[in-house]
Amino acid sequence: MRVHNFTGGPAALPEAVLQRASNELMDFRGMGASVMEISHRSAEFSRIAEDSEAALRRLMDIPDDYAVLFPQGGATGQFAAIVLNLVKSEAGEVPCYVDTGYWASRAVKEAKRYGEAVIVASSEAQGYREIPDPSTWNVPDNAAFLHVTLNETIGGVEFRDEPSSDVILVADASSNILSKAINVSRYGVIYAGAQKNLGPSGIAVTIVRKSLIGRGDRPVPTVLDYAALEAARSMANTPPVFAWYIAGLVFDWVESEGGVEVMAKRNARKAERLYGFLDENDLYQSKVAPQFRSRMNVPFNLQEESRTKAFLAAARDAGFIGLEGHRSVGGVRASLYNAIRQESVDALIDFLDEFAASAL
Amino acid sequence: MRVHNFTGGPAALPEAVLQRASNELMDFRGMGASVMEISHRSAEFSRIAEDSEAALRRLMDIPDDYAVLFPQGGATGQFAAIVLNLVKSEAGEVPCYVDTGYWASRAVKEAKRYGEAVIVASSEAQGYREIPDPSTWNVPDNAAFLHVTLNETIGGVEFRDEPSSDVILVADASSNILSKAINVSRYGVIYAGAQKNLGPSGIAVTIVRKSLIGRGDRPVPTVLDYAALEAARSMANTPPVFAWYIAGLVFDWVESEGGVEVMAKRNARKAERLYGFLDENDLYQSKVAPQFRSRMNVPFNLQEESRTKAFLAAARDAGFIGLEGHRSVGGVRASLYNAIRQESVDALIDFLDEFAASAL
Repeated sequence: MRVHNFTGGPAALPEAVLQRASNELMDFRGMGASVMEISHRSAEFSRIAEDSEAALRRLMDIPDDYAVLFPQGGATGQFAAIVLNLVKSEAGEVPCYVDTGYWASRAVKEAKRYGEAVIVASSEAQGYREIPDPSTWNVPDNAAFLHVTLNETIGGVEFRDEPSSDVILVADASSNILSKAINVSRYGVIYAGAQKNLGPSGIAVTIVRKSLIGRGDRPVPTVLDYAALEAARSMANTPPVFAWYIAGLVFDWVESEGGVEVMAKRNARKAERLYGFLDENDLYQSKVAPQFRSRMNVPFNLQEESRTKAFLAAARDAGFIGLEGHRSVGGVRASLYNAIRQESVDALIDFLDEFAASAL
Repeated sequence: MRVHNFTGGPAALPEAVLQRASNELMDFRGMGASVMEISHRSAEFSRIAEDSEAALRRLMDIPDDYAVLFPQGGATGQFAAIVLNLVKSEAGEVPCYVDTGYWASRAVKEAKRYGEAVIVASSEAQGYREIPDPSTWNVPDNAAFLHVTLNETIGGVEFRDEPSSDVILVADASSNILSKAINVSRYGVIYAGAQKNLGPSGIAVTIVRKSLIGRGDRPVPTVLDYAALEAARSMANTPPVFAWYIAGLVFDWVESEGGVEVMAKRNARKAERLYGFLDENDLYQSKVAPQFRSRMNVPFNLQEESRTKAFLAAARDAGFIGLEGHRSVGGVRASLYNAIRQESVDALIDFLDEFAASAL
């Protein structure tokens, strides 16, 4: 009944999570009401909030001197939040960015709403098919922070080795959070929209070193204000209760499966199988330099671009959805987030093989 | 199985909406995936977005020269959005507010993050038990807009007659939108968090006269930017797909029940029954002046305040939840949003009567 879902996001969720949500949608654990219908101040929801934070702290080994926030507005909200919460603009500080593709560029664009933003390195000239060599990053003395996009969902490039920096490092981990271990203490802030590896859209996670809260000097809307969110345990206003609840179920699922190390092994295997197949087959091309290839998002093209539409239609008929490349680049993309099973990847490879054979 | 749910918000949803959501949670209309797992760019979700906007336009009779936006961040996000999107600060404009209680005060507080905010009238001295007489509202010449809170969920006061103003009128309709007809063309902006009458928390609705979009001169985060949201049909970033989907189901339900006129009649009857009972019974006190009493939120107190805790415990045992007054004021509160059936109100009155008798 379930299709193979390779959507870039909002992405597939673990079937066990959906099953549980479905079972208790009308009656949350004997309350006689849906989890959507209970006060965020109730004992029942407080427990969801507390348990989910505790689970994420265990999964990512988050140090005690970091706050864990659950804001609304997705990663795009956080693009603004990092500038407003962190930059001392009156001291002449500027936010700095490593430009690795579409999402890094979106972060820069948001920063420019407020003033200057510095791109310390870019792989634009290389078609965003690699990560700029850290030895070339030219970070100015007045940097407020250095922002990196740990995985680019559209270009399909990923930091295989975690970056480091002398200035505050800020990471957009929207598309690879919980897909492998991340060394939280390297970063001042890690944020992620939920709709790839954490849950449904409508909620984000921001992990911020507590000493940085209140650093910025511009006014911040309450809904994006780290200080207000921390003080109110992410309930400075009514939180997105259903999305938070589902995220909590996803955290429980990751733990029950064995944690991020198990996810990392599975994700490596899925990606290696798919890239291996693509490299062996002339009909398909993966254009990203091998050492930067994302384990989460595998964009590729058909040798004959004109056949892409027919390919996508045949894939849909065969029970594969979400394989369209991002509208900004076209082509094909298979997203291999935590919830995507090896069986789905194997089925996709079989389909790719059959489609290639039928094309000869 | 379902309890009588009088929660202030996130509030009860129509049972038919929950039943439908439950039925299709694992498999959205034959797609083989949950609605939480599909791209917001998919044909299926585009249809949800378009249909929900069209339904809300029909329900509220929204003129064509108004945009309908579905932002994240709730009404608290919109408290900032109205200031950032509407105020010409360089021209010396100030946002102006009618202070009717807790939520009006929260809106003022948010505005003050950005500078001056003017309170043109307040009922604070009257314990927020009435709406300041419009003839006393002292709106300065440099007003950017005049903000009203159409219903105060905590104090339980409501504009029974819609306000009017020579300057741009901005309304927080979070807790009474779709509960009765609202004359949209009186307002420059009407906004509402969803979690009372529209759906689950995590999504808001903003109805804005198109000519006002881009009026303000301060930088706005994309997620709160009317222009960006309008241009992208509220998909400037990944929207909260599940909350939006449920809101669409709620709009369909309101239409199928007969629209806002039917809701208004039912809501008037529910409120009249409950206030009528409270006024007749010495054990309970409704402190709001009758002509300002909210039809959505009925706060009341026990004559003997010390018995409140015992009352709430007995109510819960009898199958009534969410009757606690807001943590800022205590006491008891019954919220009577659209999804609350007359049978639940009648059952509550019976319970109140029995509790009063047992207290004698």
